[in-house]
Amino acid sequence: MEIDEELEYQLGEVTRKTHDMEIPVMIIIEGPPASGKSRLSNALYMALDAKYTDFIATRPARGIDLRYPFMQRFWNHLPKAGDINIHFRSWYAQYIEYKEAGITENVAVDYGEIAEDMQNFEKMLHNNGYEVLKFYVNTSEEVRQRHLEKLKENPVLKWKAEEFEENLELFNYEEEMQDFVEEDQLIPWTEIDFENKNEAINTMFSTIIEKLEARIEKENTTPVPRIVSDFTRYFETELFTFDFEKEKIEKSEYKDILPDLQLKMREIQFRLYQHKIPLILVYEGMDAAGKGGNIKRTRERLDPTGYTVNAISAPTDMELAHHYLWRFATSIPRSGHIGFFDRSWYGRVLVERVEGFASQKEWTQAYDEIKDFEKSLCNSGAVILKFFLSLDKDEQLKRFEKREDNIEKQWKITSEDWRNREKWDRYLEASEDMIKKTDTDYAPWHIIPGNDKRYARIEVLKKIISACEKVLEDE
Amino acid sequence: MEIDEELEYQLGEVTRKTHDMEIPVMIIIEGPPASGKSRLSNALYMALDAKYTDFIATRPARGIDLRYPFMQRFWNHLPKAGDINIHFRSWYAQYIEYKEAGITENVAVDYGEIAEDMQNFEKMLHNNGYEVLKFYVNTSEEVRQRHLEKLKENPVLKWKAEEFEENLELFNYEEEMQDFVEEDQLIPWTEIDFENKNEAINTMFSTIIEKLEARIEKENTTPVPRIVSDFTRYFETELFTFDFEKEKIEKSEYKDILPDLQLKMREIQFRLYQHKIPLILVYEGMDAAGKGGNIKRTRERLDPTGYTVNAISAPTDMELAHHYLWRFATSIPRSGHIGFFDRSWYGRVLVERVEGFASQKEWTQAYDEIKDFEKSLCNSGAVILKFFLSLDKDEQLKRFEKREDNIEKQWKITSEDWRNREKWDRYLEASEDMIKKTDTDYAPWHIIPGNDKRYARIEVLKKIISACEKVLEDE
Repeated sequence: MEIDEELEYQLGEVTRKTHDMEIPVMIIIEGPPASGKSRLSNALYMALDAKYTDFIATRPARGIDLRYPFMQRFWNHLPKAGDINIHFRSWYAQYIEYKEAGITENVAVDYGEIAEDMQNFEKMLHNNGYEVLKFYVNTSEEVRQRHLEKLKENPVLKWKAEEFEENLELFNYEEEMQDFVEEDQLIPWTEIDFENKNEAINTMFSTIIEKLEARIEKENTTPVPRIVSDFTRYFETELFTFDFEKEKIEKSEYKDILPDLQLKMREIQFRLYQHKIPLILVYEGMDAAGKGGNIKRTRERLDPTGYTVNAISAPTDMELAHHYLWRFATSIPRSGHIGFFDRSWYGRVLVERVEGFASQKEWTQAYDEIKDFEKSLCNSGAVILKFFLSLDKDEQLKRFEKREDNIEKQWKITSEDWRNREKWDRYLEASEDMIKKTDTDYAPWHIIPGNDKRYARIEVLKKIISACEKVLEDE
Repeated sequence: MEIDEELEYQLGEVTRKTHDMEIPVMIIIEGPPASGKSRLSNALYMALDAKYTDFIATRPARGIDLRYPFMQRFWNHLPKAGDINIHFRSWYAQYIEYKEAGITENVAVDYGEIAEDMQNFEKMLHNNGYEVLKFYVNTSEEVRQRHLEKLKENPVLKWKAEEFEENLELFNYEEEMQDFVEEDQLIPWTEIDFENKNEAINTMFSTIIEKLEARIEKENTTPVPRIVSDFTRYFETELFTFDFEKEKIEKSEYKDILPDLQLKMREIQFRLYQHKIPLILVYEGMDAAGKGGNIKRTRERLDPTGYTVNAISAPTDMELAHHYLWRFATSIPRSGHIGFFDRSWYGRVLVERVEGFASQKEWTQAYDEIKDFEKSLCNSGAVILKFFLSLDKDEQLKRFEKREDNIEKQWKITSEDWRNREKWDRYLEASEDMIKKTDTDYAPWHIIPGNDKRYARIEVLKKIISACEKVLEDE
C-alpha cells in the first residue's frame, strides 16, 4: 500500500483551516518501544506546516523537572491558538514511568490522584476549545520483535535496540496503557496497528482529517452565544460583614510583633526549602486594599533566591492566545520555593466576569477548572493559601484621594481604578461567589479585614506561619 | 545609616520611565558567599515594580542545562523591551563554576574562548539598546566571617552557613572575579562593600539611578538617524554565476542515490546523538528556491524525537520586543540533536535590510553579531552548516506560475512573493554581502545551484554527511 497523496493534501488543507480559525490542536502518540511510532510521527510531522507545528518528545523526567508539578512540562508546551502540537509520548508515558520507578519527589499523594489530574487536564482542554486527538500504536509483539531484530543488524543502531529492550523490561508500559485505552475516557483513543507502515499512516491521517473537519463544521454551524455575566440587582453580602472598628492594631504593638514574625517567616522559608515543599500564596482584593504592601512585609526578610513575586496585569497577546491558566501554570514555584501572586488566576471569575471579557459559560466553568488546577498542584506537594484583602467603600475612597494628593504615589492611581470603583457591588458579588465556590480544604481562602493595614499584615503573616508549621510538623 | 526613602522613590520613578521608554535593563549582582548580596538584591527586588521586574537566581548548571550552549540560560531569560532583570549571579558565576569543576559537556574548546563569548554577548546587548549594570559585592573577609558566624547560631539556618563554607573551599570564585572586575571590560563593574547594609543599599540605588538617568537623557537628546539601506545601482553578482545547465541530475540516478544518502543521514543522526554533538542546519535562498522540499528529503528517514524544524515567518509582538537573535537562540537544538532552520537569523541582513525594517546601523553591525553568535554555539560544541539555495529569475517565475496553476499548491504563493520578486536585485546584493561577510571556517556557507531541485537535494545531503563524518572521525 502506498501513502495516499490525496490524504496528505487534505491533511494540509484541514490544518491550514484550523490554523486560520485559531483552533489549537494536540495530537498525542503513545505506543510501546519498537511499535513504529517514530516513523508514524515523522510522517505526520513532515505533512504538517512547520510554521505552526511543534514536535514535542517527552523524555524521561530528570533533575530539575522533578522539582515542578507533575503536569508542568505539558503546561509549558501548551499550543497557542491555531498551533499544532505532536506529543510523542505524553503525560501517560510520564505517569507510567513515575509510577513504575516509584518517583515521589513531586508526587505527594497516591498515583490514583495523579491519574485523575490527567483526566481533569484533558477535560479542561476540551472545554476550552482545544482539539485533543489521542493515538495508541498497538502493534503486535511479533512485528515489534521484527523491528528490533532489524535494528540490531545495523552496528550504528544496535545500541538503540538495546535501549528499547531495557525499557521493555523496566516498565510495565503496555499493560498500563492498555488499561487507559480501554477506560471510558472523555477523549477516546484511536488504536493503530503498524504491521503495514503506509496503511498505518493513512489511517492516522484520515482519522485526523475526519475529526478536524467535524470540529470545523461544528464551529461554523453552532453560533457561540456570548451571554455576559448576570448580577444580583440589589446584592447583599454575607461574607464581608465584619466590624472594621474592631480589627485594628496599635502602631507600637505592630512595631513590636512584626520583626519577630518576619524572622519566623525567614525560618519557614528555609525549612520549606529543606523539605522541598513549594508554597503558593495568592492575594486578591479590592483596589487599594493593600496587597502590595502586605506582600512586601512578608517578603522583607526572605532570601530572594527562593521566592518570586508575580504581579499580574492585563494579559499580553501571547497570553491571550493561550488557555487562561497558562500564564499562571508556567509561573508556579519549584519545590522548596515560594511564589507570591499579587492577583492571580482568579481574574477569570473577577475582572473577566465583571467586565464581560469571559462569557457566562467560561467563567462559570472556571470555578471547577480552578479547583482542579489547585488540586493538581497540591497533589504534587504544594501548600496553597489564598487571601482576600477586604476594605470598605469609604476607606477605598480615602486611599484613592490620598494617592492623588501625594506626588510620590500618583502613579499608583489611574482612571481605571475610578471606573472599577463604580462597579463596586459587582466586584463584591463576584468576590463572594468566588470565595464560596473555591474555598477547599486543600487551598482555603482567608478573608482579611484590611481597613487597618497593620492588622491585615500581621494577620496574613500569622496565617502563613501557622499553616506552614502544621505542614512541617508532619514531615 | 538609614535607607534613603528619597532614593527609593527616585529609583521607582526612573525605572517607570525606562519601562515606558521600552529600554530593557539587566542588573547583575555577583559576590562571594556571605558577602551580603542576597540582602542587597532583596532590597532592590522590593524597590522595583514586580509587574516588569524578574529576579533570576542562577543556580548551578545541572542535567539538561549542560545539553545546551553555555549562554543558553541567559538567552532564555533575556528581558523584553521595558523589563528589568535582576541577575543574582550571572554568566560570570557560571563560568567560574564550569571552569573550576572542569565541566566540558557543552564546552568544546578552552575556557578562554568562553570568556570571550561572554564579552561579545555584553557588547551585543549594549549595541542593541540593553542597559547592563554590573555590581560586585566586595565585602571584607572579616565581615563575611561575621555573617557566617551569625548564621551558624541559628539552628534552622546552620546548614546554609555550611553550604557557604563548602562553596568557599570548592571554588576559586573570589580570585577569578577579582580578575574580571579589574579587567578592562566594555561595561565596567561597580564595587559595593556590605560592611554597612544601608549604606550599601544606598550606593547601589544611587548608582542605578545615575546610570539610568544618563541613558534617558541621551535617548531624549540624541535623535537616532534611521537611514535605510543603500544598494548598488547596477549590481553585478560575483558569487551567483554558475551555469545552471551543468548542475543537473537525472531522475533515474536521483532515485538510485537518494535512499542510500537518507539512510546514511539516519546513521549520522544516531552517531551525533551518541557523541552528544548538536547539528545546526541553516537554509536561506530566494523564494521558491526549494528550501522546504530540500529539508524534507534530508529529514525523511530521521528519528523525529531527535530533530526540530524551525520554519521562520514574521516575528510576533513578543519576538519584536526582544533582541532579534532571541527567537533563534532559544530554539537551538540540545546536544546530540539536529535543528533545521528554514530561514534564520540571517533575516536581519536580508529581508530586514531590503525592506528597511532594520536601520543601516543595525544590519551593518549584525554581521559581526551573527558571527559572534555562531562562534559561541561552536564553542559549545555545535556543528553549523549554512546553505544558500540559489535559482535564476526565470526559473523562479516558472515556479511561481506553476504554483498558481496548481490548486493543491496555491496556498504556497502570495502577493508578497510577487512583491519580493520585484526587488530581486536588492535581495541578490544583500545575499551576496551576507555570504561574503559571514562565511567562516567554523560556520561555512555553501551556495547550492537550485534550478534543478534533485541536484540541490543530493548536494546538500552529501555536504551534511561529509562534514559530519569529518567531525565524527575526530571523536
